[in-house]
Parts: sequence; C-alpha cells; structure tokens
Amino acid sequence: MAFISVKEALAGTAGSQSLVGSEVTVKGWVRTRRDSAALSFVHVSDGSCFAPIQVVATDALPNYETEAKRLSAGCAVIATGTLVASQGKGQSYEIQATGLEVVGWVEDPETYPIQPKAHSLEFLREVAHLRPRTNLFGAVTRIRHCLAQAIHRFFHENGFYWVNTPIISTSDAEGAGQMFRISTLDMMNLPRTEAGGIDFSKDFFGKEAFLTVSGQLNVEGYCLALSKVYTFGPTFRAENSHTTRHLAEFWMIEPEIAFADLAADAALAEQFLKYLFRAVLSERADDMAFIAERVQKDAITRMEAFVNAPFERIEYTEAVRLLQASKQKFDFPVEWGLDLQTEHERWLTETHVGRPVVVTNYPEHIKSFYMRLNDDGRTVAAMDVLAPGIGEIIGGSQREERLDVLDARIAKFGLDPAHYQWYRDFRRYGTVPHAGFGLGFERLVVYVCGLSNIRDAIPFPRAPGSAEF
Amino acid sequence: MAFISVKEALAGTAGSQSLVGSEVTVKGWVRTRRDSAALSFVHVSDGSCFAPIQVVATDALPNYETEAKRLSAGCAVIATGTLVASQGKGQSYEIQATGLEVVGWVEDPETYPIQPKAHSLEFLREVAHLRPRTNLFGAVTRIRHCLAQAIHRFFHENGFYWVNTPIISTSDAEGAGQMFRISTLDMMNLPRTEAGGIDFSKDFFGKEAFLTVSGQLNVEGYCLALSKVYTFGPTFRAENSHTTRHLAEFWMIEPEIAFADLAADAALAEQFLKYLFRAVLSERADDMAFIAERVQKDAITRMEAFVNAPFERIEYTEAVRLLQASKQKFDFPVEWGLDLQTEHERWLTETHVGRPVVVTNYPEHIKSFYMRLNDDGRTVAAMDVLAPGIGEIIGGSQREERLDVLDARIAKFGLDPAHYQWYRDFRRYGTVPHAGFGLGFERLVVYVCGLSNIRDAIPFPRAPGSAEF
Repeated sequence: MAFISVKEALAGTAGSQSLVGSEVTVKGWVRTRRDSAALSFVHVSDGSCFAPIQVVATDALPNYETEAKRLSAGCAVIATGTLVASQGKGQSYEIQATGLEVVGWVEDPETYPIQPKAHSLEFLREVAHLRPRTNLFGAVTRIRHCLAQAIHRFFHENGFYWVNTPIISTSDAEGAGQMFRISTLDMMNLPRTEAGGIDFSKDFFGKEAFLTVSGQLNVEGYCLALSKVYTFGPTFRAENSHTTRHLAEFWMIEPEIAFADLAADAALAEQFLKYLFRAVLSERADDMAFIAERVQKDAITRMEAFVNAPFERIEYTEAVRLLQASKQKFDFPVEWGLDLQTEHERWLTETHVGRPVVVTNYPEHIKSFYMRLNDDGRTVAAMDVLAPGIGEIIGGSQREERLDVLDARIAKFGLDPAHYQWYRDFRRYGTVPHAGFGLGFERLVVYVCGLSNIRDAIPFPRAPGSAEF
Repeated sequence: MAFISVKEALAGTAGSQSLVGSEVTVKGWVRTRRDSAALSFVHVSDGSCFAPIQVVATDALPNYETEAKRLSAGCAVIATGTLVASQGKGQSYEIQATGLEVVGWVEDPETYPIQPKAHSLEFLREVAHLRPRTNLFGAVTRIRHCLAQAIHRFFHENGFYWVNTPIISTSDAEGAGQMFRISTLDMMNLPRTEAGGIDFSKDFFGKEAFLTVSGQLNVEGYCLALSKVYTFGPTFRAENSHTTRHLAEFWMIEPEIAFADLAADAALAEQFLKYLFRAVLSERADDMAFIAERVQKDAITRMEAFVNAPFERIEYTEAVRLLQASKQKFDFPVEWGLDLQTEHERWLTETHVGRPVVVTNYPEHIKSFYMRLNDDGRTVAAMDVLAPGIGEIIGGSQREERLDVLDARIAKFGLDPAHYQWYRDFRRYGTVPHAGFGLGFERLVVYVCGLSNIRDAIPFPRAPGSAEF
C-alpha cells in the first residue's frame, strides 16, 4: 500500500481501515535511536502529530549494522514493517521493521544544530530555519494552524465573508511615523520636485506608499454591503521597540458587523475566542499536553476555565474606580482619562474578576477618531477584552456612523479630511450602526502556547537589526 | 425574535426552524423600489446571498408616503413583517411589511454612484469603495470567500499545515529588480557609507529589505519537518506592466510535500483544483448563475467539464512537437528551448486535448535554479497546469534535493551562494525528495468568475500610477 502518516500509524487506522497487523510504510525523520542487544528503537516523526512512531529495527535487516545503527537525529528514513501493539510505555503501536531505507543522512551529526535535547529558545531563533524540527516548534506550528483554521471556520459558519484588504497603502491614515515606506525609486538617484522634496510622482504608485497598519477602514466598505465580513492578513508597524511583545510584521483578524452596536461586538468577541480555544483543546490535545508539561503548567486548565466562564462587562469609569479603590501598588498612575496599562488590565481580569473582562466606553481622547461618540460627549463606544494571564487580547469599537460627528472628530484629531472622502462616503450613502474588533494572531498564539517572546509565535523570527534570511 | 439574514428569509428557515407565516425582521440596503397603486415593492439586500428579498410596503404603514415612497437604491432599512410565499416571479418568499424603518438615507440620490443599472467595470474601479454594493462585486466577493475557505479546508482535510512565510524579506533571492524596497530611512537625509553608497545598516532591519515574491524557499524548511505544508498569503511584484493580467500585490497558494516527486505534485494539483471548483459549483450556485448570465456564458459548464475530466499529461518535448505539427499560426515561435506562450498553452489545452493538461519536464535553462535536474541533464522536473479558457493556472516542480547538484545550479545561475546557506542546510540535514506548486489566488478568481481584468478580482483595485485610497 501507499505510505501512511505517523498519525495514522499511531491511531492504528487510515480512514475506516484498521492497520493493525498489516504491513505499513511511514516516511519521516529520526528523532532518537536507542540500541539494545541486536536491535534498535528508532523514533520517527513526520510532523503529522506530536508523537513519533517507534520503529523496531533488528539485526535481521540487511543494513542493520551498516546503516540502522548509524542513524542519528534528523536523518530521513522510509520504514516498512508490521504495525503491532507496542509493549513499550507511552505509545499505542509500533512498527516491526522489515525494511529501513535511509533517504537522507545528516552531514556531520556532531554539529547538527537540532540535537535530541532541550535547546534554549534564544539558540533556536538563531537556527530558525531548522527549529520546526523540534518538539516545541512542531507543536506551535500545529497549534497555529489549528487556530487559523478555526478562525476561518468560525466566520464561515456564522455567515461572514473574508475580504483581503490592501497591504500596500497610499493612505497615511493612522500616523505615517510608524509605517514602512515602499518604493522602487533608485535611492542613489532620487528624483526631486522643484521645491526640493522627493518626487514621489515618479515612484511605482505615483505617490508615497506604505505598508498597511490595519485593514479596518477598507473593510468597513464591504461590511456596508455584505453585512458580516472579516479580514485575516498581515499588517505592519515600524515601531523600533525591542520588546518581547511587538513584531514589525504580524497577522491581524478584523471582523466587522453591520446593524450592530458595542454590545453585539462584545458578544461576538466572546463567542469567537471561546470557539477558538475549544477547537485547540479538542483538536490539539497532544500538542497542548506537551505545552502544559514543558512551557506553561496551566496552559490547558486556563483555557478550559476561559471557555466556561461568562465574560464580565465593566465600564472604563467603573474600572478606574475599582483600580483606585484596590489599594494595589501600580507602577503607572490610575486616573480617569489615562489609558489602562497591562498591570491594571491584569489586576482587573486576574485579581478582581478572575475571568475575562470586557472594559467599555473609554475616554474619547485616548481612542481613535472613528470610534462612536457616546451621548455623554466624553467617552466613545470602544472596548478592550482582557484575559487572565495576558491582559488585552482584543480591541474593538462601534464606529461613528454619523457624518457630522465623524467630520467633527476628523477635525478634532487634526486629520486631513481630503484623505477620508471615500470613508465619509460610507456615511453619506445608507449609513448604519456598525462595529468591529481586531486582534493580533501572534498574540493569540503566544497566549495559547504560553510563550514569553512573541518572536517564537511566528514561523521565521525577525527583529529590528537581526540577522535573518 | 432577533433579525434574520436575507438568505434565511429566502430559504424560509433559520436553522431548523420554519419562518413561513412568522413575523421576521431583516436589515439591509435597498436595491430597487417599484410602486403600484397604494403599495411598493422594495427589494432589500444584505449581501448574505445573491438575491434580495422583496418587502411589500402598503399605505397602511404610517411612514408610507413620507418615507417608504422616497426610498432609493442604497438606503439602509429595517423591515419587519410576515414572511409569506411570494406571488411574484423569481422569489420564494417575501415580507409583508408591518414596519419599515429607514436607518440611513442616501445623500442626493441623483448623484449616488451605484444606481440600479449596469455600470461599466471601468467606472466601478473609480468608485471601488462602493462597488461591493453591486450585484457583480457582491457575487465576486462571495465566490472569492468560497474559494479561500475551500483552499484552507482542502489542505486541512488532507493533513497539511498552514505556514505564513515572511512578507518582509532581506534575501534578494529571486531578482531584486522586480521587488519593492521597504525602508524607514529618511529619504531627504539618507545615511551614506564611506564608499558613498546607502548605509542600510542604519535601516530598520539593519540591511536592505524587500517585499517577498514567494514563500516557497522558506516553506521548504517546514515541509522537511511537517511533511505537508502550505502558504496562503500575499506576495508582490514591482513589474511596471499595465496589463489586465498582472497585479503588484496578489495572494499566492504554495503547498509543499515531502517524500514526493513530480507525479505526486501533479496529482495533488489535479485533486486540489477539482476540489475548489466543486465547492464553488455547490456552494455558490446563486452567484455562478449570475456570472453565467451576465459575464461568461459557459462559466458553469466549463467548470463542470473541468471537475469531470481527467487531466492529460504531456512532456514539454512532446508539446513542442505537437505545436510544430499543428500547422497553427502562432505569434510567438515554437522551438525546443523556448518557453511556451499563452497562445501555445491554450492551443494545447483547448484545441488539442480539450481538457486540462499538465506539461512536464521543461528545459532547465528557462526554469528556476531550485528545480530538480532530470537524468537527461537538459530538463528539470517542472510542470505547468494548463486549463481551457485561461492557459497556465499552476506552476510547480520537484525541488533539487541533492546538495551537489543544487550548488552547481546556484553557480550556473550566477547566484550568490552566501544567500542560500540556510536553504542548503535543508539538503545537508536529512534531505528528501520534495515538490510543490504555486498559484495566484486572483488568477483563480478571474478564471472562475470569467473576468477579463485581474483588477476586478481584488477587493480594492490598484495599478501603477493609479489614484487610490
């Protein structure tokens, strides 16, 4: 028969067909080899699931001495043999090999970077192209995949349409200072305007162009035609911050719903996060068990608690009062009109409520111009979803759908109305209350996998000034 | 009850609950209004499906004269009433309104760009932020969504893991001439090296950085750990070509499979495309019917033929012989060693075979350095999948897994081996035969929707030098 995955071998079935007692072939890479008298236990992984399969090679194999006993971590093999119940601990089935072909050796096993031992995360970032071969990054990759699939599935099942908003943007909507410029101009011979500036009319798009920081403003146009839409794509920030919490390039998820207020937005956020975490708990139990064992002890229990707890709702004004009354010592001041810091958010969600919290109605001047002004005139219909163990995980708002109020806010924020004519059109033609939220995909991965550095949540880590490929 | 979607209203059910005879509420935007004696038929769309629902408003409504009779295309309404079988043609159910609230008017209906009539695609590109409100772009958006979901679902069901490869790349692997540069340097005050060049060590990433043209080389590293992986994300080309077939920014799908040769790659491509088209035919029959009526007459029959036809396999050398023997007049020459042009591809797939064709084993010098050299020494294990009506839709290859051959090809192509150390590592440590392919998502949308300009396949069209937001 054709070859099967290690996952199928360990399950003992492919589809509905039992494989136990049959001859099977698996293809993968050696994790470890352990020798006993006249036989070797070779653990082979193909990444289809967390566990490797144990291949039992005996000296009956013609290449046992010449090849099998020389296998080291990372060698590529094709193992054929009978699938039988394993006598060993921790594995369901094993393969009693009748053939063991070595497809790819490891050049100089002594210096191969991915040895069968625990490596520091710092070291693994230096060999990022090989780190998917480790237990941890195999697990993180499968969990990432599970989350991404669940995101698309959740929205699809709930009648949302995916829209990919532009990556390259010539709108400097939200502060060009933190944006990456894209250009095809020859930097050694920059064209100049008569006034002495750079002549961007000669550039590829005929004007200055940047990498997008968010697809929200664009996707609103689709929301006001298709009612329920979402983006899931890369966004960029050129903040030169060497923290463990920021990336220059990250994926954002931004749903947008029409005929909706902030309460509907918060309900969607709660339903969404719980759906994702349920998916991980049920579909990646193997990888999560490893995460709980090696990375974050309460990784599973904290997610189980999350999916079972109703989210609390607290208004910002009340949150400030609670923080001030807490007698807790904070590094940052707590005062009406200042934004909440992570330490405040974590106190609210972890200590005060002990569950996820949606904080609503923030002071208008600390939030974005497009958020809907509340009747009190000093707060906007914005929300942050705070989760125990991380703080803010989602930020959202009801959007200002009243043209006159939007215009006043564009003016108040000192923005150029000429850049927003198209955005204003959504309010001129059939405007409706609408709302949405955004969350960073990598931040979700960090949370689920209990990682402490967000660079370990992306397939190829990169930081300002870092060497990379 | 809460409001329902137009899709649910037209189906007469929400979940398993019948809605016929019940009071329902829908929320959406007016497409058309037609008046009869003392009543109006208002067609309301919310984008959940192709068709609008007919709302019957009578003069029994308190705001019939003042509001209902003033409704024009694009107005946002909330309609409440009884869902009943429709007497009219072409619709299953309609709503006999007991309430009709106008949420958002259209400012100056005379000048509203999206009138209830056919607009030229050129005009709609100028009002791209409003064009999702048209029948065509609603349909295209839902079909895009259906394709994207089917892509993720296909790979998930077949054991692939999604990997998002870097968008920002400091490797100029495949020809920096066509790449966009990203920078945060102040262009008015560029830092210089002592030799007089630009000092990119002062730039955000400490070296020159570009937008990626492909995730393939990166994803190979994940393939050689997890066996079956795929990318689905944006890629960029700075080719200044104002054609109807090229985009500066487009999404690519790039699966990569380990322990696989070119035949396995071609089989995967066939299985994949058929899965996608079956999904569109079954899930978006409403939108496809509109496409067939208004855009491309054979849109449905051509996809049905596609999913039912076994793909033909033809070697490049044989394809050249067939083209030369065809007595067909071509604009471009046909000669062994030259690449096939669209006219050649279309003759092969449309005229000669009448089905999709996989052309394999191209001359090595017209393909990329990473493709596996065949034993003949003059062809590589590359393939193009050609489809009737479009020509090439997928390009793929088996990758060169032998380090010595790869090194020779890197040298032959004049590439700098220093840039490929990490890529070489995959061949030094447990190398295996592997293969993959790539296809442009928008090209798929163009094909399925019968569009003639690829800018109509993206949510926000953009071209070199175009005004955009």
